[in-house]
Amino acid sequence: MPRSGAEARRRLQQAALELYRERGFDRTTTAEIAARAGLTERTFFRHFPDKREVLFDGEAGLRAALTQAIAAAPDGLQPLDLLLHAFRKVEHILEDNRPFAEPRLQVIAATPALRERDLAKAASIVEAVAEALRRRGVPARLAGLAAHTGWATFHQAAQAWIDDPAQSLDAHLLQAFDDLRTLCLTALAGDSGR
Amino acid sequence: MPRSGAEARRRLQQAALELYRERGFDRTTTAEIAARAGLTERTFFRHFPDKREVLFDGEAGLRAALTQAIAAAPDGLQPLDLLLHAFRKVEHILEDNRPFAEPRLQVIAATPALRERDLAKAASIVEAVAEALRRRGVPARLAGLAAHTGWATFHQAAQAWIDDPAQSLDAHLLQAFDDLRTLCLTALAGDSGR
Repeated sequence: MPRSGAEARRRLQQAALELYRERGFDRTTTAEIAARAGLTERTFFRHFPDKREVLFDGEAGLRAALTQAIAAAPDGLQPLDLLLHAFRKVEHILEDNRPFAEPRLQVIAATPALRERDLAKAASIVEAVAEALRRRGVPARLAGLAAHTGWATFHQAAQAWIDDPAQSLDAHLLQAFDDLRTLCLTALAGDSGR
Repeated sequence: MPRSGAEARRRLQQAALELYRERGFDRTTTAEIAARAGLTERTFFRHFPDKREVLFDGEAGLRAALTQAIAAAPDGLQPLDLLLHAFRKVEHILEDNRPFAEPRLQVIAATPALRERDLAKAASIVEAVAEALRRRGVPARLAGLAAHTGWATFHQAAQAWIDDPAQSLDAHLLQAFDDLRTLCLTALAGDSGR
């Protein structure tokens, strides 16, 4: 038996990911995940409420790191620059975890039940980011829009990094924010399309 | 019995919305929805696969109208202007339906199971919008980011319109795209925050 709870969690996550890839999420039971990890089903439920949540263990940590990075960012940054700064502070969380992150994203994309949970987690992070921006004095309306836009940009970068590991996540992140700038600067020129 | 299927759908939606508000989504059954609508449960299931889907009947229509508006937009518009043009073409769908739209959004916000479905529907619309942009020649990377950003802006406008009906949805939409421009122009100036 692993001595630490963290080690048990890690083994359960790895076992779940392997089984979801081998036989699919729907055909995998919590008992099988526990057995593959060399643990009891009771231990599984001590760590995770269900077999979806086992793949989202990192979300709370990412959300906490992100809101802390927003709170600690230098003064004087405009909302999207503030978010870019914060994303660069937390990107190591994904990079440190790449061997798990890559198959995890593939399993989520292929499984509707996991995709719904993933969207709910993302919505919760966006709300937390908007709240962190408001605490930095960003007006409520802009904070919500900046949080949605910034998260979409970060998400795009993470997906590009999974598809093209030759570049770092940081390089993809800068590229994605450049893309956002391109989109805004080439359009929205005041009255075009109106 | 209503003569047309459309009338039955409308009555089932109205009945579901009333019951979800009165006693909550979890404590409402499909049999009760059918009874309130003066129809049989069998008729309910002829129109909707489950009691979540009954509140999302308009999503397919909105998605179709939006992708058609993107396809039919004038040449020469940049991606976000193209989306603003398309959103303005379809906003009447929400405005025509306001008496239903307002309580519907409140029930969704208060019900996790409906919120997950709502997020999944939104993700599906964003994918369809990105695909429609690619068909208009927008490069894939920009199309995905523009679709996410544009949808977030539209969503912000719809929420503002629910909260403040004194202005039209169109006015809120122009305001939200102005906010997006403000966000982009005051930030992302090239190397700030790097």
